[in-house]
Amino acid sequence: MTIRIDQKPQVDFQPIHQSVPITFHYDVHFTRGLFETNNPLLAKIMVADRKARIKQAIAVIDSGVLQHHQQLLKKLQDYSEHHQNFFTLVGKPIIVKGGEECKNSPKLIESIHAFIDQVGLCRHSYILAIGGGAVLDLVGYAAATAHRGIRLIRIPTTVLAQNDSGIGVKNGVNAFGKKNFLGTFAPPYAVLNDFNFLTTLDDRDWRSGIAEAIKVALIKDADFFEFISIYVGELVSRDRSIMEQVIYRCAQLHLQHIANSGDPFENGCSRPLDFGHWAAHRLEHLTNYRLRHGEAVAIGLALDCTYSYLSGLLSQQHWQKILTTLAALGFSFYISELGLTSYNGELFQGLSEFQQHLGGELTITLLQEIGKVREVHQVDLKCYQLSVNVLENWVKSQRENLFS
Amino acid sequence: MTIRIDQKPQVDFQPIHQSVPITFHYDVHFTRGLFETNNPLLAKIMVADRKARIKQAIAVIDSGVLQHHQQLLKKLQDYSEHHQNFFTLVGKPIIVKGGEECKNSPKLIESIHAFIDQVGLCRHSYILAIGGGAVLDLVGYAAATAHRGIRLIRIPTTVLAQNDSGIGVKNGVNAFGKKNFLGTFAPPYAVLNDFNFLTTLDDRDWRSGIAEAIKVALIKDADFFEFISIYVGELVSRDRSIMEQVIYRCAQLHLQHIANSGDPFENGCSRPLDFGHWAAHRLEHLTNYRLRHGEAVAIGLALDCTYSYLSGLLSQQHWQKILTTLAALGFSFYISELGLTSYNGELFQGLSEFQQHLGGELTITLLQEIGKVREVHQVDLKCYQLSVNVLENWVKSQRENLFS
Ligand SMILES: NC(=O)c1ccc[n+]([C@@H]2O[C@H](COP(=O)([O-])OP(=O)(O)OC[C@H]3O[C@@H](n4cnc5c(N)ncnc54)[C@H](O)[C@@H]3O)[C@@H](O)[C@H]2O)c1
Ligand SMILES: NC(=O)c1ccc[n+]([C@@H]2O[C@H](COP(=O)([O-])OP(=O)(O)OC[C@H]3O[C@@H](n4cnc5c(N)ncnc54)[C@H](O)[C@@H]3O)[C@@H](O)[C@H]2O)c1
Ligand SMILES: [Zn+2]
Ligand SMILES: [Zn+2]
Repeated sequence: MTIRIDQKPQVDFQPIHQSVPITFHYDVHFTRGLFETNNPLLAKIMVADRKARIKQAIAVIDSGVLQHHQQLLKKLQDYSEHHQNFFTLVGKPIIVKGGEECKNSPKLIESIHAFIDQVGLCRHSYILAIGGGAVLDLVGYAAATAHRGIRLIRIPTTVLAQNDSGIGVKNGVNAFGKKNFLGTFAPPYAVLNDFNFLTTLDDRDWRSGIAEAIKVALIKDADFFEFISIYVGELVSRDRSIMEQVIYRCAQLHLQHIANSGDPFENGCSRPLDFGHWAAHRLEHLTNYRLRHGEAVAIGLALDCTYSYLSGLLSQQHWQKILTTLAALGFSFYISELGLTSYNGELFQGLSEFQQHLGGELTITLLQEIGKVREVHQVDLKCYQLSVNVLENWVKSQRENLFS
Repeated sequence: MTIRIDQKPQVDFQPIHQSVPITFHYDVHFTRGLFETNNPLLAKIMVADRKARIKQAIAVIDSGVLQHHQQLLKKLQDYSEHHQNFFTLVGKPIIVKGGEECKNSPKLIESIHAFIDQVGLCRHSYILAIGGGAVLDLVGYAAATAHRGIRLIRIPTTVLAQNDSGIGVKNGVNAFGKKNFLGTFAPPYAVLNDFNFLTTLDDRDWRSGIAEAIKVALIKDADFFEFISIYVGELVSRDRSIMEQVIYRCAQLHLQHIANSGDPFENGCSRPLDFGHWAAHRLEHLTNYRLRHGEAVAIGLALDCTYSYLSGLLSQQHWQKILTTLAALGFSFYISELGLTSYNGELFQGLSEFQQHLGGELTITLLQEIGKVREVHQVDLKCYQLSVNVLENWVKSQRENLFS
């Protein structure tokens, strides 16, 4: 409409239909020795927008990473000096305590914001987040909300962060005792997976991330599941080359899903990548985050696969193969502190929390066969109860086999 | 890539290029008497997603609106009872103090988050935000960050909010003394402009929003500028019908720009809709928000148009027409508390703050003619200084004319 000057006042105004199309682009790189001065990757990425000015960057680092990579601060410093024509590292890196704890601390967000203000970062500056999934989620939230989003370069240092949590479009911190109650959808500027970081993970964190690979294999790629199950021994004995392939394929499947699902910002109710996660999130909470995310996911997968089997969806053969693979990797389905029968009420509260977090109708992903899902909108709590018992017995009998 | 089981371990992993396409849709409606029980608009919108469940909603209301619309709480209550098959209003509406002050108070965000948690809103529930631009910005930020985004229905109640701030894709609150330091890009679920609210605006708020209409007319639509300048008298005497047309056209131009700019989330440096805003934001801050946003924008427009004229870009005729129109509407270009010559340093700090907030290269929008812009990346501070003096004299001579 162009308003004509001679126009009579209108009485009725039609609604304006607004469509805002946008495409986010980012690359996920795989490298080794990211901060070696002869590795140009990071510096190149920072100046890839071809703006003449020397870029500004700050770094936020996971304390758990620093503890095992004591040269990191010096390397980062050397790297930035060596590439001073490309970028400047402003201020000292912020070090935050690694692990879930950091996501429970609103003060940390404030102090990252204060630092951004203090050093005067603009929206075309960079925040380098180096650490596990928890630190990346925290820093991602702070970065996404300052100036409505400062460029975030994620440098994931755990298996789980490299193959799942660090490569997607979400961030989050916990509030009101609820996991990821606060957060945004905010694609990163780039993700740089440096495999070398993985060597210093303890066995639990090495293993934990494999649960997400199994998850995505189960829902999308039977061949990939086969690959993992064949190389269980290598994964347990920390074969780097096999792990790197697992990470790459897992990252690829996650990224493809996000790009092609048609719902990257999760406005619908369907969330197949959250297979096994309703119980996982609840268990993390119930154990006060003593469980690693991946460890909780492994239990959640075992539970939802068992439920899929008991409700007649999944064959016994596939079910057993899944449980056997998880167990062979060293995942446990039984959590000692929890008398399984008494906490069911608590556990099943996870279903409604999951629904609330997703919004809308309850939508639970079940397994039809390895590589193929079926979504349901109702579950039978009695059958879930039975699934819990079956898992408990499965673990017991396994243990008896061990000692017999 | 499908991993083959017999495959040799790979040594080199190619980067994965991720593209995440998404299109946001929302409608901007124009109505009167939104909360009359016989107006189905709001209820219809809430159930338009065709999900069977009765929807949950909470409301957050601007205290300044309530003060002048004392029936609003009762009407909202009646409306929700009348449409109880569609939605439930959970909890009592939250009332927040209207005006810029609310954007300076982090406690308010926390309490909205706490309320969302307490009543158990899910991502498919609704938050109704009723108020001026400041309240909408605050509530929008809280809504966008809870559960990574709860559906926000904006119900703007000022001219500025109906034609600009309430219809776009941004939210924000102030921090570290900086305007909108915190915020996100988060398109609303819907915007419902109820013209009836405008009758109770005081003259300053009635006028203030017209500045944004002039801004967008200057940069995009000479006919629209002509329309405004012809109907200045009607606008000053609060002709509702003319104002409604100004709002509609202004909203349309803003929405078109956001949809078609190719950069709705402002990743580039160009921001024509922020014409006149570098000085406006700084002046709001320098006057401790005594100036309304639109009043500050009017000064910013006058300044940047004068600069455009003095630097040889804009014709004298167009320049005079713009200043005359702004003045005829009652906008003032001179702010009494500020000795203009002494605060220039302070004022020009706004240029670097603007650059920081946008990111990257300084990009200032100037006017070439009414309806046509030119972007520049450098400005001549002496010429800006001169522009300030010219404006000061312009105002003085106007005043002398009045009293002579
Ligand atoms: N944003 C998402 O899409 C998404 C998806 C899945 C999971 N997550 C989140 O990710 C988090 C879990 O991430 P995680 O599994 O990486 O665990 P984590 O971040 O809690 O890290 C586990 C431990 O490993 C340490 N660590 C990190 N890197 C190390 C290294 N290279 N060497 C030695 N120690 C190291 C950390 O300090 C920490 O103590 C959870 O908060 C979960 O909610 C987010
Ligand atoms: N998000 C964006 O894209 C965007 C764009 C432009 C401006 N803004 C923001 O908008 C804000 C300014 O908004 P505004 O101009 O609407 O002012 P405002 O929200 O500050 O409201 C001005 C005053 O009017 C009162 N009021 C509101 N509705 C009323 C009514 N119907 N009757 C009587 N009084 C009423 C309020 O209580 C307040 O006291 C600024 O914070 C600015 O930064 C945001
Ligand atoms: Zn997970
Ligand atoms: Zn504005």
